[in-house]
Amino acid sequence: MTIEQLAVRLREFASARDWEPFHTPKNLAMALTGEVGELIEHFQWLTPDESAHAMDDAERAEQVTDELADVFIYLVRLADILGVDLLSAAAAKVDRNEHRFPAR
Amino acid sequence: MTIEQLAVRLREFASARDWEPFHTPKNLAMALTGEVGELIEHFQWLTPDESAHAMDDAERAEQVTDELADVFIYLVRLADILGVDLLSAAAAKVDRNEHRFPAR
Amino acid sequence: MTIEQLAVRLREFASARDWEPFHTPKNLAMALTGEVGELIEHFQWLTPDESAHAMDDAERAEQVTDELADVFIYLVRLADILGVDLLSAAAAKVDRNEHRFPAR
Amino acid sequence: MTIEQLAVRLREFASARDWEPFHTPKNLAMALTGEVGELIEHFQWLTPDESAHAMDDAERAEQVTDELADVFIYLVRLADILGVDLLSAAAAKVDRNEHRFPAR
Repeated sequence: MTIEQLAVRLREFASARDWEPFHTPKNLAMALTGEVGELIEHFQWLTPDESAHAMDDAERAEQVTDELADVFIYLVRLADILGVDLLSAAAAKVDRNEHRFPAR
Repeated sequence: MTIEQLAVRLREFASARDWEPFHTPKNLAMALTGEVGELIEHFQWLTPDESAHAMDDAERAEQVTDELADVFIYLVRLADILGVDLLSAAAAKVDRNEHRFPAR
Repeated sequence: MTIEQLAVRLREFASARDWEPFHTPKNLAMALTGEVGELIEHFQWLTPDESAHAMDDAERAEQVTDELADVFIYLVRLADILGVDLLSAAAAKVDRNEHRFPAR
Repeated sequence: MTIEQLAVRLREFASARDWEPFHTPKNLAMALTGEVGELIEHFQWLTPDESAHAMDDAERAEQVTDELADVFIYLVRLADILGVDLLSAAAAKVDRNEHRFPAR
């Protein structure tokens, strides 16, 4: 699956449930924030080192994967509604960052 | 570019700057949160309707695209560090949501 | 109760549970973020008008009050650890904002 | 100053600028999120230990104090609009937590 195919699937998912009126950029940005909040809760009491081994625990790995999926889904849906190509935007940003932060 | 190619580029970007020690899941989850906070600021005083036309303003469109890129970059980097395939995780989540929220 | 009394109570609460090592500014800032994420979920699908009547529903009112308490508790704890007096800092900020945004 | 006095001052501040229509719970929850995002950026690349000494640097201390003030201001304004007494809500929550997490 590509991001574009995921975006189409999310469009159809929202349409089939009459959720389109709720999927404004404002609401989707809030939903994205809520999911990021759930993701960060998995790491808040871990040391940075512990966080690097967070996926060693199978139950936590499943939950973290699920939260990453939720964040990604809302990000792809928001970008689709706004007409932004995430991969192009990211490539352009990394290009700029390579000038902004020169390598050693 | 694919997500995998972006992930490789971000790996090389971090490596070339000796930033790998900073890129723990804990730190990257925080950075992701910070970028989502910058994204949401563009929509906080708009009505939902106004937010649907946020990209009509060229300057705002550029800023919103830039924030979406930042969110996406940290999400891809975090998923890469954690060993999570975002597209597979999202597909699995949408499958589950189709059972959880049956269409009309 | 005052904020200072709440801060003391939270100090004692953490001490009695040996949670002090976890209460670094970094971790508390993450916990604050997580709670704000839970708060925002209550408003994400409401219109602004609906959000103004969110407390008419008794069950939601209780949940929103609970989330506001969690956000406040982590904010007071974080400020206490950092040695910041929230009321003085807020008063100074409002003073500055009165110059920055002159009234009609 | 007390929280109640700060809430009154924020009410008057908004009223004098005709900002009341913008201060819905939905919008204020978003603004709160944005400010928390700015706060967390100060701690994201620090180790937990470094974060415990974040206020040793005078410039950073000023910025962190400023962000804490912004978070607190939006939290007090949101609670005021929703009719929630933050100190009472926090006291009730700590009471519940004392039962939920018994001390050693």
